Amino acid sequence: MTDYRRLRVALLGAGAVGSQVAALLRQHADELADRAGAHLELVGIAVRDIDAPRETDLPRELLTTDADALIVGADIVIELMGGIEPARTYLLQAINSGADVVTANKALLATHGPEIFDAADQVGAEVYYEAAAAGAIPIIRPLRDSLAGDRVQRIMGIVNGTTNYILDRMDTEGAEFADVLADAQRLGYAEADPTADVEGYDAAQKAAILASLAFHTTVPLEAVHREGITAIDKTMMDAARHAGYVIKLLAVCERLTDAETGESISVRVYPALVDRAHPLASVHGANNAVFVQAEAAGNLMFYGAGAGGVQTASAVLGDVVSAARRHIAGGVGVGESTLANLPIVPVGRVTTRYQITLEVDDQPGVLATVAGILSDGRVSIATVEQTVAGEDARTARLEIGTHKALEQDLSETVDRLAASGVVERVVSVLRVEGD
Amino acid sequence: MTDYRRLRVALLGAGAVGSQVAALLRQHADELADRAGAHLELVGIAVRDIDAPRETDLPRELLTTDADALIVGADIVIELMGGIEPARTYLLQAINSGADVVTANKALLATHGPEIFDAADQVGAEVYYEAAAAGAIPIIRPLRDSLAGDRVQRIMGIVNGTTNYILDRMDTEGAEFADVLADAQRLGYAEADPTADVEGYDAAQKAAILASLAFHTTVPLEAVHREGITAIDKTMMDAARHAGYVIKLLAVCERLTDAETGESISVRVYPALVDRAHPLASVHGANNAVFVQAEAAGNLMFYGAGAGGVQTASAVLGDVVSAARRHIAGGVGVGESTLANLPIVPVGRVTTRYQITLEVDDQPGVLATVAGILSDGRVSIATVEQTVAGEDARTARLEIGTHKALEQDLSETVDRLAASGVVERVVSVLRVEGD
Repeated sequence: MTDYRRLRVALLGAGAVGSQVAALLRQHADELADRAGAHLELVGIAVRDIDAPRETDLPRELLTTDADALIVGADIVIELMGGIEPARTYLLQAINSGADVVTANKALLATHGPEIFDAADQVGAEVYYEAAAAGAIPIIRPLRDSLAGDRVQRIMGIVNGTTNYILDRMDTEGAEFADVLADAQRLGYAEADPTADVEGYDAAQKAAILASLAFHTTVPLEAVHREGITAIDKTMMDAARHAGYVIKLLAVCERLTDAETGESISVRVYPALVDRAHPLASVHGANNAVFVQAEAAGNLMFYGAGAGGVQTASAVLGDVVSAARRHIAGGVGVGESTLANLPIVPVGRVTTRYQITLEVDDQPGVLATVAGILSDGRVSIATVEQTVAGEDARTARLEIGTHKALEQDLSETVDRLAASGVVERVVSVLRVEGD
Repeated sequence: MTDYRRLRVALLGAGAVGSQVAALLRQHADELADRAGAHLELVGIAVRDIDAPRETDLPRELLTTDADALIVGADIVIELMGGIEPARTYLLQAINSGADVVTANKALLATHGPEIFDAADQVGAEVYYEAAAAGAIPIIRPLRDSLAGDRVQRIMGIVNGTTNYILDRMDTEGAEFADVLADAQRLGYAEADPTADVEGYDAAQKAAILASLAFHTTVPLEAVHREGITAIDKTMMDAARHAGYVIKLLAVCERLTDAETGESISVRVYPALVDRAHPLASVHGANNAVFVQAEAAGNLMFYGAGAGGVQTASAVLGDVVSAARRHIAGGVGVGESTLANLPIVPVGRVTTRYQITLEVDDQPGVLATVAGILSDGRVSIATVEQTVAGEDARTARLEIGTHKALEQDLSETVDRLAASGVVERVVSVLRVEGD
């Protein structure tokens, strides 16, 4: 066996991902040593409770509740605790003690990324976080390195497995949101408290990370517009299918160019209509995919499992090998390049196409009234379809596809439609993405 | 403007990719400087003939025929000449003079990779080659870095745009090979001499590079089994469609585990049947995609443009930025990890499923004879469909789907079928990949 140098690896957290990382580090020790050019010696695993029940058997002598002591003298620290504190304090402590750090903590990076990257820059350490953006899908290196010489124009990502699972089953089975959610919870695809997933908080954190990388700028989580999928129902799914679309929860990161105001970006998470022929429409179940449009490279897509303990562990271990190689090679770490300082526009200033479904009185002149309100609101109609909706045939349903319109105009126009007297109900207003 | 250090960049070659790289380096100079942390100063472009006509305007004062002089003192050398010599000599010269090198030269890496990587290792330089494996698709960093902590089991790649374009049009239009090829040549999708593409040489070079990376082992080009697509005709396309498949030219890199002989790999390029529901079946036109199955990460797919001057230039520039960042950071380059030394098995020892199409005499007992020959040859039948083939109804067509069989057994069995007297013609024998 090759006589490699030993690197001390400290693991913080032994949950679903952490326990898999610990297991793989030990199972594949020789192979990892060959790849990293160093023995990766797992010197300890910091946990809150040594006696807590765990899925995977971990050597008891490695478990400790003293994370501070474990971090001292570690060459590589892997943070898989999740949450903001104490994860933030430990990561900063690790960086300042000279370790390279690996983390899968999207909440922490989306809220305290600049602080952590600055700390690493100060000491020439590097922060690795491939597992924080789209689980096992390698997306960080492609964005940070492979596309560093290109200009990313847009990212559309399905970055939350739980919501994709729910929407996919609603689409394919015609089921209602609440029923599929209950099922997803029973099957382990959704948490007991599903808020972080179904309200788009998880996707928003990932969107902030992806946009920062893609546009080389700092994206605070507060600047990400966020809507969840709890309002999506069978009626909207059916209407989407009828019009040739599928509803997906998308993280959209977009570069906007304005002749007067220059460049800015928009980062937003919401359920949107995607054409059935678009590659993102074929992403089923709990899978994730990130579709990237770059000026020179054209369209790229990265597809794979977005979550899962062992899948995420793969991304973490790739980072550990990279950190080890850099540790051996010497030199300072590659800092984040976030010099662009692009302004982030509110969602009201974004333009997209829309699909509006209305229930209207079925009487002469209604379509003319609706069309007039849209036109007055600077919303141009691309397609319109009227069908009988109510059982008593007193109401009709209008499906209106718009040309690109400013979100603010659209939103004000919909308010005016709702108050117009001829519209009984605004059934749904959904953006169309991916043209 | 930030006061960055200057790095001297030398470009060898000003063809479709080279001229785009030169243009983008100058167009995006400020942005690239921010990302790389250094001014990337294009100090010269080595060409064979300064007065040759070029698609893109290049500043004449940068053009030189003296590559040797250009390489001396360059921090980063970009080799986009193609071919083995003088590209090999220049690359080695650049490495030995202390430069980091970027190349898109798959032919060179597939044949002289170890020599070049060793030379870089000796001096602590790094070789970047994202554009050599799948054009603009970021696949090198995901395989080398992101999946470094995982075990890749299999890669199935559509890595040649020309052949995918031809096969896709044959599939969707029911056209014949020769007609689509002629059309592809007229449209610029195929070279005047299409041999490198349609005979699978280009794909074989890429397969060697991908397999080396994925399995951390050295894969000589001679060890790659290679078949082209010139024998694929409309009849085979129709039979494939009828059976629920599409024919794709695949680069398959597979890890084989045998209880007795241990681990080995197989690397092969051939037209194969892919289930229509497989993500690779939806890769249309001249696009490429690399499907990766890894032990922990599960299934991943990377999709995008496989060729094109500006697309490939994106990958090259990403490498240039990486090389610059490393140059600034200091430390030695990350060498290739090829310590596994896995044996490469000949294609005869590979097992896959097969789809066999036969024209047989339409008389009693023929199916029994055919089934007997298959069974004697250790080829187990999964599905069989008999239809009338000849216009005089003297012959019938047999479509046989096999279970997994050893290529050597299958091939001997097909020979026995052909010589059996009851088989008029072996219409086609195609492997099925991607189960």
